[in-house]
Amino acid sequence: MDERAALGLVGDLVDAAGDDAAVLGGTVVTIDMLHETTDFPAGTTRYTAGWRAVGASLSDVAAMGAAATGAVGVYGAPSFEPDDLEGFVRGALDVCEHVGAEYVGGDLDGHDEFTVATTALGETDAPVSRDGASAGEVVAVTGALGRSAAALDAFDAGETERANELFRFTPRVRAGVSLREHASAMMDSSDGLARSLHQLAEASDVGFDVEGAAVPIYDALRGKGRLARATTFGEDFELVCTLPADAVAAAKAALDVPFTVVGDVTESGVRLDGEALADRGYTHGE
Amino acid sequence: MDERAALGLVGDLVDAAGDDAAVLGGTVVTIDMLHETTDFPAGTTRYTAGWRAVGASLSDVAAMGAAATGAVGVYGAPSFEPDDLEGFVRGALDVCEHVGAEYVGGDLDGHDEFTVATTALGETDAPVSRDGASAGEVVAVTGALGRSAAALDAFDAGETERANELFRFTPRVRAGVSLREHASAMMDSSDGLARSLHQLAEASDVGFDVEGAAVPIYDALRGKGRLARATTFGEDFELVCTLPADAVAAAKAALDVPFTVVGDVTESGVRLDGEALADRGYTHGE
Repeated sequence: MDERAALGLVGDLVDAAGDDAAVLGGTVVTIDMLHETTDFPAGTTRYTAGWRAVGASLSDVAAMGAAATGAVGVYGAPSFEPDDLEGFVRGALDVCEHVGAEYVGGDLDGHDEFTVATTALGETDAPVSRDGASAGEVVAVTGALGRSAAALDAFDAGETERANELFRFTPRVRAGVSLREHASAMMDSSDGLARSLHQLAEASDVGFDVEGAAVPIYDALRGKGRLARATTFGEDFELVCTLPADAVAAAKAALDVPFTVVGDVTESGVRLDGEALADRGYTHGE
Repeated sequence: MDERAALGLVGDLVDAAGDDAAVLGGTVVTIDMLHETTDFPAGTTRYTAGWRAVGASLSDVAAMGAAATGAVGVYGAPSFEPDDLEGFVRGALDVCEHVGAEYVGGDLDGHDEFTVATTALGETDAPVSRDGASAGEVVAVTGALGRSAAALDAFDAGETERANELFRFTPRVRAGVSLREHASAMMDSSDGLARSLHQLAEASDVGFDVEGAAVPIYDALRGKGRLARATTFGEDFELVCTLPADAVAAAKAALDVPFTVVGDVTESGVRLDGEALADRGYTHGE
């Protein structure tokens, strides 16, 4: 079965599944696995891998509106080269420090393929889930979309240092905490804006009308099909949230990152410029 | 560098590293990665894999003396077969239920090798670390050692159902919580009693004199070299702890599992029946 059907099966078996992170009392917890063939293009440094892997888990915590407290990781590799391992750990430490969390260690695993598992924790008494959106609200995103697509282009062009920089995103932890009091539903854009909208639509039983011209596209993303790549490429780790239109100004004022309304919450259907927007997710290198 | 040196490097970089689980406020958190070639012999069902992987993380929580609250996992496999995935999730749910924790979901990853990552969380205001042992105390273990070695023998003998049963151990969560008020240092025996003793000795700056005849050996472990296999095979997930001799009776009375004093805490050196006990860890199939 495909991954979506498989996630549905897990959701049938596990009551608590189905959001960016699981909630246990006032703690949110998430776990992710990334590996070389699909997540770390040739040229990705281990420092970037550590930053990005732990960052992806911190982004899930942010998407719940929780304050990230800490993270742990497993470094799985065929051999433990001191420079590589130190790079990974320093990347993990630095991304945590960047968002006020603590990297508290983890484990090692001898593994044929370079494979990383990461967990992040956060605290909140009022997590923001995916199911609270209402027709009549607006939908907005933090930052700009397409940064990881631009990174892939840079890897392809042999601009390895620049590509690594683009890959080391800032998890929107401060933004998530700040948006908690305004957002009715929230998730991150790790599978792309298009899929995020479909997931929010399904969880909240609503629809979306998004205006293409309003979608903030990462400046470094060049070439043809920028809007399509920015909306479907994914791996961007921005926050996508719904909120009442009259809360946008206050939300924006409290944020230290760009926050852009891209459309309206409707009764049903996910549309971009009036056309049905396919539920097309994260597709590498397309 | 070998795994031990690599762990030392991580410990130099991450202040909080070096125990069975990391502590973040009143929460303990651990992450583990297991995979087919080294952790799941042919014949291991996905139900057993889910139970065992999540159980290994719950065991780390138990080793801190914390009450396990929940767990999450990533199921990484080349394809998502419904029966396999459901088996894994049911194993994860059941082992959590067994110890009063909640399995709250996780993620999927398309991965060439069947690979699982698991995180467990627990709560305690007074975690038991590895560094509190003092010369003059005694060292004791829960349950009996060698169960996983017996499981491997059963897999080798083609007794698959029995092997799976032996592989589905009970994480010592209740015992860990109960021992918290008596134990000066504690860890689990996942790398074998010998290595556990060396790790406790190093962390606490003490030594151990263990009496071979006192070591409880799992009844189903048969054949030559039972004591050596029970002490070095590992993967048993029993608790190894130190405590004052006069606290043993109270500790035992409060436990619902066997609890056996196997030796004394000394000033230095790790000895079995008077001979130096090599720091030999988990070695499969030996």
